[in-house]
Amino acid sequence: MIKAAVMGYGTIGSGVVEALRINQESIKKKAGEGIEVKYVLDLREFPGDPIADKVIHDYQVIAGDPEVRIVVETMGGVESAYTFVRAMLEAGKHVTTSNKALVAEKGAELIAIAKEKGVNFLFEASVGGGIPIIRTINSCLTGDQIEEITGILNGTTNYMMTQMSEHGLEFDAVLKDAQEKGYAEKDPSADIEGYDACRKIAILTSLVCGKQVDFQDIHTEGITKITAEDMKYAKKMGRSIKLLASSRRTQGGYAALVAPFLIAPEHPLYHVSGVFNAVFVRGNVLGDSMYYGSGAGKLPTASAVVADMVDIARHLNRNVWLEWSKEKMTLEEFGQMRSAFFVRTPADKAAVDALFENAAYVEGVVDGELGFVTEEMSEAEFEEKAAKLSVRSVIRCASAR
Amino acid sequence: MIKAAVMGYGTIGSGVVEALRINQESIKKKAGEGIEVKYVLDLREFPGDPIADKVIHDYQVIAGDPEVRIVVETMGGVESAYTFVRAMLEAGKHVTTSNKALVAEKGAELIAIAKEKGVNFLFEASVGGGIPIIRTINSCLTGDQIEEITGILNGTTNYMMTQMSEHGLEFDAVLKDAQEKGYAEKDPSADIEGYDACRKIAILTSLVCGKQVDFQDIHTEGITKITAEDMKYAKKMGRSIKLLASSRRTQGGYAALVAPFLIAPEHPLYHVSGVFNAVFVRGNVLGDSMYYGSGAGKLPTASAVVADMVDIARHLNRNVWLEWSKEKMTLEEFGQMRSAFFVRTPADKAAVDALFENAAYVEGVVDGELGFVTEEMSEAEFEEKAAKLSVRSVIRCASAR
Repeated sequence: MIKAAVMGYGTIGSGVVEALRINQESIKKKAGEGIEVKYVLDLREFPGDPIADKVIHDYQVIAGDPEVRIVVETMGGVESAYTFVRAMLEAGKHVTTSNKALVAEKGAELIAIAKEKGVNFLFEASVGGGIPIIRTINSCLTGDQIEEITGILNGTTNYMMTQMSEHGLEFDAVLKDAQEKGYAEKDPSADIEGYDACRKIAILTSLVCGKQVDFQDIHTEGITKITAEDMKYAKKMGRSIKLLASSRRTQGGYAALVAPFLIAPEHPLYHVSGVFNAVFVRGNVLGDSMYYGSGAGKLPTASAVVADMVDIARHLNRNVWLEWSKEKMTLEEFGQMRSAFFVRTPADKAAVDALFENAAYVEGVVDGELGFVTEEMSEAEFEEKAAKLSVRSVIRCASAR
Repeated sequence: MIKAAVMGYGTIGSGVVEALRINQESIKKKAGEGIEVKYVLDLREFPGDPIADKVIHDYQVIAGDPEVRIVVETMGGVESAYTFVRAMLEAGKHVTTSNKALVAEKGAELIAIAKEKGVNFLFEASVGGGIPIIRTINSCLTGDQIEEITGILNGTTNYMMTQMSEHGLEFDAVLKDAQEKGYAEKDPSADIEGYDACRKIAILTSLVCGKQVDFQDIHTEGITKITAEDMKYAKKMGRSIKLLASSRRTQGGYAALVAPFLIAPEHPLYHVSGVFNAVFVRGNVLGDSMYYGSGAGKLPTASAVVADMVDIARHLNRNVWLEWSKEKMTLEEFGQMRSAFFVRTPADKAAVDALFENAAYVEGVVDGELGFVTEEMSEAEFEEKAAKLSVRSVIRCASAR
């Protein structure tokens, strides 16, 4: 029996304990040995809970117990989680975490410590919940060079965009609805400002390029400016608006961006509705692929954590391949990134035509204004031209497949 | 440098050589060492080809060369492939194959030999082309018990169904088109009769249950009976018709089926068009997930083979976990499987209502007839009732999600 410890008995931590119990037998078969939770670290007590007598309050108990081989970190936040995880790795224990903030900020360092100690630091649950996107990058698409990763990586905002699109509602109304349903938090800024998706694409891009991509370097726009009128234009164009987190291999390196995008039905991500997440991956040999599933939630996230535990159980005495060095990856400058842009402006085609060649017009949606889609151009070029126009709204277009 | 041999220099075999060349550097990084093709086994010569001087005609040369660690089998067919692969495994070489016929028929036996010899027999490319569905089952969704796998596993038939749906064409016309485009073979029966999809779902189901599922035991219906009128009904119902290969965990074991299904837009497989493949997987912890990509083609399939080679390079001295014993899995009897059925019959509601409770009618598509969808019932029950009716067409309905 492999002994494990769970640090943080909240939604995900308790989900991990539950998943280990429900699938005890099949996990034993797949891991080669059963996995048993010996400790649960939490500030609280849980009287009456099956794990009540396993609760401890001092992480040093875990670090100091040679019997514990796998430690699960589901506390969230960076500071304590970092201290605890580091201590576990240094004590020679394997760690799996669902904590994207920790991974985005300290991933490279923790991976290096794990390598040095001959253990594993895994984090499948930190991006895309139950979607096995990290293992897909590290262990499945290994024959390819990955040219693009574009994801719907935040279920809250995808739910909101879906509601706006399907019911013609305004942003504030769908935010309230999402909060009432428990999909959005009281302070929803991490979701609606794109910060959550930004950390996730930073992690994925780091894995693709094998170097440290700092999430602070990624240009990030949220969905707060999207209106019911924008959605009307999208409908008229047969498209949808979604918050996409995207990175591409470019000639000089990598470029990354988080922003709302207009997306056409031909794109596999167009059909991803509600709280579901999905990741589109283009490989230079494979071509286009897509991975779809529950991006959050107690059990889907626990599924990913437990898959990490099984992987660890299969590699108790060796470090699994994972390339993410501390060397900083300098992303392509935002101004150099290229897109086609959808623009809303007062109805004055002469003004538009004077600035933008071959503008594709979308008319008759809002009185006295027109929409148009530009040709593909750099952010810098667009910004310069758009500054000469009265612009009511700008949304990038996801490239057609 | 790890030495490899490729047996069969056709479309896929040459794709493997090409992918290894294109991504030489990144593969070296991911595999820990470069991979070099030492031999190409084929009946033909390839003068002028970069591998011209590596061509051999006797597989014993490979089996007898201790330097060769990885052997790729991309010959196709069962007989020679089986003899050659067996010889390679017995000589202590790792093998990866793209050959679904070989894997469906001899998988369990070859896996057992590989285990005994401490090498690996991998076959990612045998199902779903570039979609990493086998690694997803074996290495990613390991925290789950898989309750359902339903796939669009044959690109030819999916292309044909898409064409019929989008252009209102008859079966014979789209078959001819598919043959002209090179998507369907001269003798298209393996695709259109569902035999190809059947072997693939047999492989996936064997991996899910860990036992031998004989493809001959899977009830298989092709798409040859689907007409333009059936598609009109589907449109009227807001659905599509797709050839699905599906297996489910049942109370007593597993049930599997290959047949055309009516599928609603809420199902993630509804939107999978053209030659693309996709696999829907439901886990008992994860919930619903879907994996989408190119199901065939030179490079996508090569991508999967090379991923196997990298996995092997990472596990040169150990057998990677893979459960598929020779013990036969007896599938649930076909008559006990449950579906809702769509039926076309001469317009006589009294006759239908006398047999089927709560029939949901679809009218006004074809003069003098009506369509209806039954409640969910067993195949046996449906067959008994349908025998009392004049039935023009029957299509099962994929369960709503």
